[in-house]
Amino acid sequence: MSAAPANRTPVAGSANRIPVAVLGATGAVGQTFVRLLHGHPLFELVEVAASERSVGRRYDEATHWHQGELPETAAALVVSGCDVNEVRARVVFSALDASVAGSVEEAFARAGAVVLSNARNHRMGPDVPLVIPEVNADHLDLIETQRLARAWPGAIVTNANCAVTTVALALAPLHRAFGLRKAIVTTMQAVSGAGYPGVPSLDILSNVIPHIPGEESKIEQELTKLLGTRTGDGIAPAPVAVSAHANRVPVLHGHTACLSVAFEDDVTPDAALDALLGWQGDPICRGLPSAPDHPIVVRAEEDRPQARRDVNTGRGMSVVVGRVRHDPVLDLRLVAMTHNTVRGAAGGSILNAEVMGRRGMLPGVPGGSW
Amino acid sequence: MSAAPANRTPVAGSANRIPVAVLGATGAVGQTFVRLLHGHPLFELVEVAASERSVGRRYDEATHWHQGELPETAAALVVSGCDVNEVRARVVFSALDASVAGSVEEAFARAGAVVLSNARNHRMGPDVPLVIPEVNADHLDLIETQRLARAWPGAIVTNANCAVTTVALALAPLHRAFGLRKAIVTTMQAVSGAGYPGVPSLDILSNVIPHIPGEESKIEQELTKLLGTRTGDGIAPAPVAVSAHANRVPVLHGHTACLSVAFEDDVTPDAALDALLGWQGDPICRGLPSAPDHPIVVRAEEDRPQARRDVNTGRGMSVVVGRVRHDPVLDLRLVAMTHNTVRGAAGGSILNAEVMGRRGMLPGVPGGSW
Amino acid sequence: MSAAPANRTPVAGSANRIPVAVLGATGAVGQTFVRLLHGHPLFELVEVAASERSVGRRYDEATHWHQGELPETAAALVVSGCDVNEVRARVVFSALDASVAGSVEEAFARAGAVVLSNARNHRMGPDVPLVIPEVNADHLDLIETQRLARAWPGAIVTNANCAVTTVALALAPLHRAFGLRKAIVTTMQAVSGAGYPGVPSLDILSNVIPHIPGEESKIEQELTKLLGTRTGDGIAPAPVAVSAHANRVPVLHGHTACLSVAFEDDVTPDAALDALLGWQGDPICRGLPSAPDHPIVVRAEEDRPQARRDVNTGRGMSVVVGRVRHDPVLDLRLVAMTHNTVRGAAGGSILNAEVMGRRGMLPGVPGGSW
Amino acid sequence: MSAAPANRTPVAGSANRIPVAVLGATGAVGQTFVRLLHGHPLFELVEVAASERSVGRRYDEATHWHQGELPETAAALVVSGCDVNEVRARVVFSALDASVAGSVEEAFARAGAVVLSNARNHRMGPDVPLVIPEVNADHLDLIETQRLARAWPGAIVTNANCAVTTVALALAPLHRAFGLRKAIVTTMQAVSGAGYPGVPSLDILSNVIPHIPGEESKIEQELTKLLGTRTGDGIAPAPVAVSAHANRVPVLHGHTACLSVAFEDDVTPDAALDALLGWQGDPICRGLPSAPDHPIVVRAEEDRPQARRDVNTGRGMSVVVGRVRHDPVLDLRLVAMTHNTVRGAAGGSILNAEVMGRRGMLPGVPGGSW
Repeated sequence: MSAAPANRTPVAGSANRIPVAVLGATGAVGQTFVRLLHGHPLFELVEVAASERSVGRRYDEATHWHQGELPETAAALVVSGCDVNEVRARVVFSALDASVAGSVEEAFARAGAVVLSNARNHRMGPDVPLVIPEVNADHLDLIETQRLARAWPGAIVTNANCAVTTVALALAPLHRAFGLRKAIVTTMQAVSGAGYPGVPSLDILSNVIPHIPGEESKIEQELTKLLGTRTGDGIAPAPVAVSAHANRVPVLHGHTACLSVAFEDDVTPDAALDALLGWQGDPICRGLPSAPDHPIVVRAEEDRPQARRDVNTGRGMSVVVGRVRHDPVLDLRLVAMTHNTVRGAAGGSILNAEVMGRRGMLPGVPGGSW
Repeated sequence: MSAAPANRTPVAGSANRIPVAVLGATGAVGQTFVRLLHGHPLFELVEVAASERSVGRRYDEATHWHQGELPETAAALVVSGCDVNEVRARVVFSALDASVAGSVEEAFARAGAVVLSNARNHRMGPDVPLVIPEVNADHLDLIETQRLARAWPGAIVTNANCAVTTVALALAPLHRAFGLRKAIVTTMQAVSGAGYPGVPSLDILSNVIPHIPGEESKIEQELTKLLGTRTGDGIAPAPVAVSAHANRVPVLHGHTACLSVAFEDDVTPDAALDALLGWQGDPICRGLPSAPDHPIVVRAEEDRPQARRDVNTGRGMSVVVGRVRHDPVLDLRLVAMTHNTVRGAAGGSILNAEVMGRRGMLPGVPGGSW
Repeated sequence: MSAAPANRTPVAGSANRIPVAVLGATGAVGQTFVRLLHGHPLFELVEVAASERSVGRRYDEATHWHQGELPETAAALVVSGCDVNEVRARVVFSALDASVAGSVEEAFARAGAVVLSNARNHRMGPDVPLVIPEVNADHLDLIETQRLARAWPGAIVTNANCAVTTVALALAPLHRAFGLRKAIVTTMQAVSGAGYPGVPSLDILSNVIPHIPGEESKIEQELTKLLGTRTGDGIAPAPVAVSAHANRVPVLHGHTACLSVAFEDDVTPDAALDALLGWQGDPICRGLPSAPDHPIVVRAEEDRPQARRDVNTGRGMSVVVGRVRHDPVLDLRLVAMTHNTVRGAAGGSILNAEVMGRRGMLPGVPGGSW
Repeated sequence: MSAAPANRTPVAGSANRIPVAVLGATGAVGQTFVRLLHGHPLFELVEVAASERSVGRRYDEATHWHQGELPETAAALVVSGCDVNEVRARVVFSALDASVAGSVEEAFARAGAVVLSNARNHRMGPDVPLVIPEVNADHLDLIETQRLARAWPGAIVTNANCAVTTVALALAPLHRAFGLRKAIVTTMQAVSGAGYPGVPSLDILSNVIPHIPGEESKIEQELTKLLGTRTGDGIAPAPVAVSAHANRVPVLHGHTACLSVAFEDDVTPDAALDALLGWQGDPICRGLPSAPDHPIVVRAEEDRPQARRDVNTGRGMSVVVGRVRHDPVLDLRLVAMTHNTVRGAAGGSILNAEVMGRRGMLPGVPGGSW
């Protein structure tokens, strides 16, 4: 890749796998990236980067690992700084904290890397794709605008906030079929969404906290961008009024959302079910390693989805939907749930990278080769 | 009270206290009645009644007590059957299961008792008061209609479902001030709302169950009756469209509700706060033993109310409200929380009785004597 | 097998798999049997039996399934009664409740079946093997005594109580090396050990219950039998004094045990670690489908094992041990944890069957063929 | 008190109450001190001190209050530094973190204050009383030794670690009656014992952590000092071998301990029960505001004590004991539970101060006046 500075030697990946790095690798989302990239058929994790106090240490010593067995190959990596001069991979997953993600991710894009970011900083940038690929893979085209505007050889692509991912996946087929106009969203979010150490047990045992800082505005803004339309050089947000209530509940994994929604067209629960059941999302995702067979799984039982019981559906990459029924105030009610640290964070980001690889948007990967 | 059958001798209460009985005294709500009646200045618990297998046993042996110290006077009561021939008190609190409450409560009313029922069976009866007294104490007048229609010397008065109590108390002042038109209600309900043994721990640990059988329709129906208007011989329900999502969460006590609401009149969050802060509800409640100083307590912190931390506000009889803010879809959003087994069940029922006593509606209590 | 009644036709299993049945298939342990038998390379689940109210219904309709995806082949089985005339498989796993297990299991053994029982009823029978095969596979010889004494063509073999399984696996290598004399055992047991509906959430949320009916005497008795010695026609219990404190804690899966133990020989923590690390248990288990690579996994971190994080070690079949250190009162302290419904129940029973198959103790399986 | 520097003006307390200060007032234990001192009949909280970042702010702004309603008088106090020149009260409760408590407490004692410390730093000092007054109020005499040795006008008096408080209170009467020789202690400790933010919810939801840093050695050492004997100028520790297993469990409040113990004399469960039931502890405590009517409450039910249900027994100042029974390895088994932040921390410290006041050991309080 011509954009790479001359003083860099190629990173050695396995024969057929793209070498990738994780920035912010020691935190909760960073660990999930490391876990999900282990054994990935297309990407090989070759570098982990983190903050100053971890630099120079083995990954297994620098991280307080929480994700079952730490893969040996990752354990032995030496942590580097989140610096373009230290990280050589050209495909970079960012699990950086929002306090530093903004400028660090820009530096990597400027240096030629494709940055797949889970941070909120760039999500609402007018030239930054915010992508759940089954929903809006076409928004990836926006990186052309981004490269023109910013003269970056690399790019920044973002995935959505964990809560809005649940909502957008569940509503996308309904929006396509009936034209979403209004959505009232009440979330019940797992503690793993707050990272580690995150939510103190004294705050959440036998309790509901009816507030998550910044979460409601993220849900309201990101949803309209995700459901928006690719225009000449940007995204026209979907004309949907969104109201969010974000709650933290004593659940380990899995964000649940209760949705009341209204549409332009008439919709019955049966028609909505048909739309949900028939939906596969953008076919570009089909067969990719992280793409679930069914991006939406509809449960017929009246007491599902349940966070603990359904969170691993589609290896954590499906949204599980249930209780689709008439709404006496708007048009329709339903419940949706996804795994917040897999589909809603690291897994979603990796799927974005897989789609980009298939489309020839990753350095060193000819389009269509996957 | 002349209506009492001649073959009944008066129940011996203390000098100035009204003798009362609890039907269904061994269950979770029944226990809460027993606990809250202990030391009550106006009522004296003289009888406990329960199902066949408990009859004839001491109360402390018949019940699996869950409420701290079991008062000694209650412990020593011998359980009678839920039969008008066995229970002599003329003021009767019913914590009966819905499977039997319907006919048993009718029998007691027919025999001359005032039955204050926590069961759902009669709540929506057109001649049965469904009362949260700060909200609609005037609905108690309906017992005149009830007595005429049914030729009962006694009466049945009901309190609302625990979840709708939270919602109705929080919305009543806003309805009075601005005219409620639409309400979308998402509840996160404590396990104590399901009684004992109730919710299995295997179902709820680290989980959300997005369904509580029958709960959503109760919320939708009871709310319009509670906010309705006394007409000639009935209640005209408030013309409010209500949509409910009921969820069970791993919380011991305290039902939380996220509300999105629309009004006939314009409303700002500040105007709504003024209406909430200034509201005392029907003055008939003032100073009664179970009436909280503030039926509504507004918390200014952005992360309140919280079930565990705020549940005992006003000794469990206040609704705690917070996060009053603009709603992008309807007009207003807010969060409300109350103690589901106190205000939302036994405590609400006892307050109803206190109001009736003050109004001279209880056998043997001249109006205005409290 | 000649003992099978003449009116039975063989059960059709797949070419190379032994047809098996599960008794008590709709309960919590029964479901775990069904889940673990799905895809089993040696056994094929062909029959499920349960109590009267389930008989004649499809398994997916008769059970309130709690274990992820219900395998389709099991879902379609029609539930039969727990009756020797209805169940034709000759290898039968029993997840029956203790209230009925005793006589039902005897009837199956009398009719020629090998019954692998998780029930407590027969565990302490002097001619009944109580087996954790890495620890005491040789106790299976006891079925010869059993058959002689009872004139049964079949047999009953039991696995241990879930809590004692944790303790026995962790202590077996120490007993072999140093001669266990005393053990004080304090357990912290998961709610799944109580089945479904089991422990009410109102009892266990934010609580510890310092009592599990019958559990402490099971731990005290079964441990000495498990560590005992095969004699001429019975088992001489190990001469170990055992004291157990059994507690229920708000944990879904995984029983943790804190152990203080004394030995005949001198023992240092390092010597104990060597004994634990080098132990593989009876080689008969090696390579069997349910046998973990490491029956004991020792964690070096000072805050492990942890129930939630370590419960699936060795697919739930390993015991995880940590904090091996000097005990100021006895000789040694340590912590052990296993998956109570896998190793401690259904998984342990299936491993017993696999060992029996390898040894030629199952009807229709020539020894050594696995 | 003559030792007070000349430049100090007296602190204005109410007529009959002793002015007191709390050091480390913003943390979890500090808040409990503030809550328990509210409305105290003998002490008046006049000063709160905390670390640099809180100094100069109102207490209600400086603290993240977690304890129900924050008393208004405390709310309005301005936080001072933990400095002898800023705090004028001569009776000082220390909720300081161990990282700073050592030298700060010494400075206060040197400046003439009686410091009642909840920190671990000085507990094992040979001239520092470690006191649970029902158990060893006579150890307070040690401050004479302390003053001689250190030439301090003030003094440092400590209360015990929260877990050992449970154990020492339950075992004291048994030790007095039968001579304790050995104790094996397994604790299941609440998250509030770790302060705030303390234990991350991701660590403890549905989990047991079998390790609390430093806790086991505290239990082992402090117990022998608490049960020790006052000698000429020190404390001869009780000759008891103690072994502790400390576990963190998902419980909000209440530390539970399972105890296996051996004695010099013969003991039966009945004799032990008699000793427990008849014990009132040192009579110096009787009638003091924080002293419970019954320092030990014995529950007869086989499944008690339970942390959540029994934690507030005696307003959190009683230890609740149950399941007293024979131990097959040592002599006796039992379960004990107390409120870890009340009796086990702030409440214990306040009771120590009350005893000192009664004995004339507090500046400005003539002995016997209470």
